[in-house]
Amino acid sequence: MSASSVQQPRDEQPRNPADGAATLAEIARAAGVSAPTVSKVLNGRGDVAPATRSRVEELLRRHGYQRRRGSVQPAPMLDLVFHELESSWAMEVIRGVENVARKEGLSVVLSESAGRLTPGQTWVDGVLARRPTGVILVLSGLDPAQRAQLTSRDIPFVVLDPAGDPGEDVPAIGATNWQGGVAATRHLLELGHRRIGVIAGPPGIMCSRARIDGYRAALETAGVAYDPALVRNGTFHHEAGYTEGLALLRSADRPTAVFTGNDLQALGLYEAARESGLRIPHDLSVVGFDDLPLARWISPPLTTVRQPLTEMAEAAARLVLDLGRGNQPGTLRVDLATRLVERASSAPPAGE
Amino acid sequence: MSASSVQQPRDEQPRNPADGAATLAEIARAAGVSAPTVSKVLNGRGDVAPATRSRVEELLRRHGYQRRRGSVQPAPMLDLVFHELESSWAMEVIRGVENVARKEGLSVVLSESAGRLTPGQTWVDGVLARRPTGVILVLSGLDPAQRAQLTSRDIPFVVLDPAGDPGEDVPAIGATNWQGGVAATRHLLELGHRRIGVIAGPPGIMCSRARIDGYRAALETAGVAYDPALVRNGTFHHEAGYTEGLALLRSADRPTAVFTGNDLQALGLYEAARESGLRIPHDLSVVGFDDLPLARWISPPLTTVRQPLTEMAEAAARLVLDLGRGNQPGTLRVDLATRLVERASSAPPAGE
Repeated sequence: MSASSVQQPRDEQPRNPADGAATLAEIARAAGVSAPTVSKVLNGRGDVAPATRSRVEELLRRHGYQRRRGSVQPAPMLDLVFHELESSWAMEVIRGVENVARKEGLSVVLSESAGRLTPGQTWVDGVLARRPTGVILVLSGLDPAQRAQLTSRDIPFVVLDPAGDPGEDVPAIGATNWQGGVAATRHLLELGHRRIGVIAGPPGIMCSRARIDGYRAALETAGVAYDPALVRNGTFHHEAGYTEGLALLRSADRPTAVFTGNDLQALGLYEAARESGLRIPHDLSVVGFDDLPLARWISPPLTTVRQPLTEMAEAAARLVLDLGRGNQPGTLRVDLATRLVERASSAPPAGE
Repeated sequence: MSASSVQQPRDEQPRNPADGAATLAEIARAAGVSAPTVSKVLNGRGDVAPATRSRVEELLRRHGYQRRRGSVQPAPMLDLVFHELESSWAMEVIRGVENVARKEGLSVVLSESAGRLTPGQTWVDGVLARRPTGVILVLSGLDPAQRAQLTSRDIPFVVLDPAGDPGEDVPAIGATNWQGGVAATRHLLELGHRRIGVIAGPPGIMCSRARIDGYRAALETAGVAYDPALVRNGTFHHEAGYTEGLALLRSADRPTAVFTGNDLQALGLYEAARESGLRIPHDLSVVGFDDLPLARWISPPLTTVRQPLTEMAEAAARLVLDLGRGNQPGTLRVDLATRLVERASSAPPAGE
C-alpha cells in the first residue's frame, strides 16, 4: 500500500509521501494505538501512558516521520538553551537573540541545561508542548533521539558556537576560532615573545581546541617549537585562569606572555600575576578571547580576540527563522570572523 | 438584575459576583458584542477588530471584571521583563528566576522593554495570548491600563527592585537600599574620610534615591555637613562612573572617597582615577553597590554593598507563584538585606 492511499487527517500528512516516509495512520497501526494518540504524542500532550509514548516515539524515529511544514501554526517564540547561564558572555548572546525576536514579534524562552551539554528530556517535552518557531542551542547539542523528536515535529534548530562536533547536517553558527588563535599568538610573536603560554578551555570543547591549534600553527610557522609544558586546560571561569595562571607563572622557565581561553580566565590570570608580583604588561603580556564589555574596563584594558557574540546570536536567530520558513540556506554552517583588539595588556617582553 | 442571575459560561464567572463585579455576559451586552467575542479579547486572540477590542478592554477595566481563579489553566511559563538587558546584573536576576522556574517545571520567557520603564502594548498582547503562570517586572512597571489587563485575566505579577513608586497594592521585592547607603558611608567615615563624594543613578530611580538618602543620613548623624557639590547623577553604566568621576576628581576640593551607584560606575571611576594619577585606595577610596562577580576580580578588588540579586529574583518568582495559587502573602512588599563587603578599594585617607 502506498503512503498516499492511507486515510489520514489533512494536517498530519507526511511531507514527502513519495519518499516512503510513514504516515501518522501507519505509525498508529504499527504502535497498536489510535491516530489521535499519535497526534497527542506529536503535540507533547501529557495524557499518554509513558510506555505508549516511547513506543510511538521510537516508531516516529524509525520511520522518519515528519510533520508537513505549515500544517501546524508554531507559537511566536524562540527557545534559547544555554549550557550554563553565567557571566556577561551569556548576556551578549541573549541580547542578539532578543534583537531579532523583537523585530519579528517573537518572545524568547530561556532555559539552562544545568551544566550538561545536552538538555534534559523535561526540556524537550516542554518544547514539544509549546511548539516554538525555532530552537537555538548555545554551546550544547541534542542527542540523536532529541533531534529526531524536533525533526518529526518540524521544529527547526540551530547550534550556536558548537561545543562538540554537531555534524555536517546540523545548522550551526560559530566564530573563526582557529584564526583567532593564530592572530593572538602572532601578535605576541611580533612583540618579541618566544615563551608564550596558553590556558585552554576544557579539552572536549571544539571551539577551544581550534584556538589552541591556531596558537600552535602560529608558533610553528614562526619557527618557535610548541612546548606542551606551556599549555594548560581549565574551565572557562575566572578561577581556572587564576589556578592555571599560577601554575604557569611559578614554573621554572615561566612564559613572558599568556593567551587565555577567554576574558574571564584573563581576569583570573591578572590576579595570579598580582600575587606573583608581576606587572602587566611590563613583566607579563596577556591576550584574552571574547571581548566582553569588561575587557575595556579592567586595568590594564585587555588585549583580546573579539568574538562577535551578539552578531552570532542574531545570525543564529535569523537562520532558524529561515529554516522554519522552509528556506534551505546555501550552507548550514557559518563562522563569523574574529579579530584582534589591541589594548594595554600586551607589550614587548621586559628587556627588549 | 444581580450579577449571579446572568447566564454565563461556567469557566468565565467573575470571582466575586457578590461584590457587584460585572459578568462576561454583561460586558458583552454593554459593548454590543457576543460573549465569545469578549472571551477572545480576554484570551488575547488577534481576530477581533481593534475598535471592538479597545471598547471591550475599557468596559472590562471600568467594571473591574476579573476572571475566576483556576478557570483557565495557565501555561507553564514565567514572564520576565527587563527595562534593559545589560551587564551581569541582569544575569544574576535571570539565574534566580531560572532556579525557581526549573524546580517548578516552568520555562522563562524573557523580554526587554527596550529602555522604557513600561513595556509596550505588543508585550501585553503577547502575555494575554500565552497566559503565563506569572509575570516578573525588573526595574520597570505597568501603567494602570496594563495592570487592569493582567488583573482581569487573573495573571499575577510582581515588581523586582521597583524603579518608581509601584504603589502599596503592587507586590514587589526590593533590597534595603537606604541601609546600604548608610553602611557604605559609615564605613568611609570610620576610615576617617570627611569629603565623601557620591555618584547616584538617574534621579527618577527610587532605589538610587534611597541610597543617597542613606548617604546623607550617615553623614549628618556623624556631624558631617551634606555638600550638594559632592553629589553627581548619572546612568547606571560604566561611562557615567567615568564622566561623573572625572568631574568629582577634578574639582578644587576633591573628595578623598566616592560611593558609587553601582559596581559598573565604580569601574568607570577606577578609570577616571587612573587618568587623574590617583591610586586606589591610597589616594582615593571607592565603595560600589551590587557586588557583581566582577567586583571580586578587578584590581584592587572592590569594597561594595552586596545586593542579593539572585535571592531577590528567587523571592520574586516564589511570590508570583504564591499569588497565582491564590495565597495572599502577609505583606506585598519585601526588601531583602544588603550588607557591606569590605575588600581592597577602601582605606584611610592619605596622611591619616
